[in-house]
Amino acid sequence: MVAPASRMASEVAQRVLALARSLYRESPPEIVFHPQCFASYGHFAGDDDRRAQALLEVANDESYDAVWFARGGYGSCRIAEVVMRGLLEPSRQKTYLGYSDAGVLLAALYGAGFATIAHGPVAQDILREGGDAAVGRALAWLVDRSLAALEPMAGSGRRTAAFNMTVLSQLLGTSLQPDLDGHVLMLEEVGEAMYRIDRLLFHITSNSGIRRVSGIMLGRCSAITPNEPDFGMNEEEIARFWCRRSGIPWLGRADIGHDSANKIVPFGSIPPPPPTASS
Amino acid sequence: MVAPASRMASEVAQRVLALARSLYRESPPEIVFHPQCFASYGHFAGDDDRRAQALLEVANDESYDAVWFARGGYGSCRIAEVVMRGLLEPSRQKTYLGYSDAGVLLAALYGAGFATIAHGPVAQDILREGGDAAVGRALAWLVDRSLAALEPMAGSGRRTAAFNMTVLSQLLGTSLQPDLDGHVLMLEEVGEAMYRIDRLLFHITSNSGIRRVSGIMLGRCSAITPNEPDFGMNEEEIARFWCRRSGIPWLGRADIGHDSANKIVPFGSIPPPPPTASS
Repeated sequence: MVAPASRMASEVAQRVLALARSLYRESPPEIVFHPQCFASYGHFAGDDDRRAQALLEVANDESYDAVWFARGGYGSCRIAEVVMRGLLEPSRQKTYLGYSDAGVLLAALYGAGFATIAHGPVAQDILREGGDAAVGRALAWLVDRSLAALEPMAGSGRRTAAFNMTVLSQLLGTSLQPDLDGHVLMLEEVGEAMYRIDRLLFHITSNSGIRRVSGIMLGRCSAITPNEPDFGMNEEEIARFWCRRSGIPWLGRADIGHDSANKIVPFGSIPPPPPTASS
Repeated sequence: MVAPASRMASEVAQRVLALARSLYRESPPEIVFHPQCFASYGHFAGDDDRRAQALLEVANDESYDAVWFARGGYGSCRIAEVVMRGLLEPSRQKTYLGYSDAGVLLAALYGAGFATIAHGPVAQDILREGGDAAVGRALAWLVDRSLAALEPMAGSGRRTAAFNMTVLSQLLGTSLQPDLDGHVLMLEEVGEAMYRIDRLLFHITSNSGIRRVSGIMLGRCSAITPNEPDFGMNEEEIARFWCRRSGIPWLGRADIGHDSANKIVPFGSIPPPPPTASS
């Protein structure tokens, strides 16, 4: 576990370890929280160098099977370039899991051809209402590649990708923008006003690369802040509008969001089981 | 005057007309408020079609010298494509003035080779503290091309452009992204948290087109919302950081912002005086 953006709450480690023990009594997965998860530097879990080095240390170490992002928040974009330059061969064999701000790193890793990347719960989700289910789902994916953890469309065998709208928007037109040709693109949002969701979907659907996706699905948009005056459309009407405008197929709702029900969405096709599955 | 985004407050028209009469006693400029400025449709000053048609009507009418945007808000991105398709020859001879959300249209017009576009006060600015000065400056530019109205760097003869950070960010990677090679790029922001300003400047300075500007200047960032925890850098430190990271020259502060002191920044070089100057 590393925290490429904001600091993880201190109680998360114990709760995640306790949950793992209760779920995998016979052989609990070994979960190592890098001390950097608890570091603090202004907005971040340590300064840029510390966060980048912690991620590289774990990713480049053959003894770990996965890099699980402790939480989102903000800060991954500040370290993505250094991280991508420092990744060595062992990092390519690992599973990566996170969402929200960590989407910056998922995009960069996917763009670099890493095969086993997924959008899904972070450790800090254990603090949510019903958070044990989210973290249990993350473990089911990391440890056993449980197909039950997958978002239904992702489980159907189509190539997929998932992002927070703002995070994807802030990658468009940069070298970190992922090639999503032919992918089903799932988008979720949290804490934005409806006019901003409209503007984000204008931005995303106006990008020529994004227009080559096979379709867009809308995850949950939660904690929407007040729009003054009322925007006159809800998030689904907005998503349908921009799909129609841009010619991108609208494929309905996706079972992802900033909540405990957030399902796993692998980037690309479903990867094979990990070497340690059911161990 | 047209309102491509949000609705103009009803008292603005009378106040702007009264100010123009007091400033230009002998020959006040003729300012026509299109009825669409007062229209209301959810978040917008009329639906997309109405806003686009009002703008086209005025822009394509030879009898007007300028298109002055009534205010920002949100909505220009929804009509930019239709507007650009509908512009006829008379629209190319006009002066265009606005900022904030209207930056979408400034970018589109500049990209289409329109020569007389500027970032500067909108009519609605008359409601600000000291707003008469802002509107007087807009009139001094529109009517007389007053060099005193210019932002100092813009007045120095270098090619310039100015944008709200969020508005420019939401154009990156779309067909509306302007070619700013060799321009001094001025950026301002309002109502965003410091971590968002950091993320916006990551986005803007990570774009390969933007990296060809001759430098970045930072306008005012006002009404910054609380950052939890404190971000640890102010907006100038952030802008300097991303300039250093991206190799874009840092050129200091610009005299623009969401306030009454907002100076005029022509897109490109300073245009020649209008045919009606001092008339």
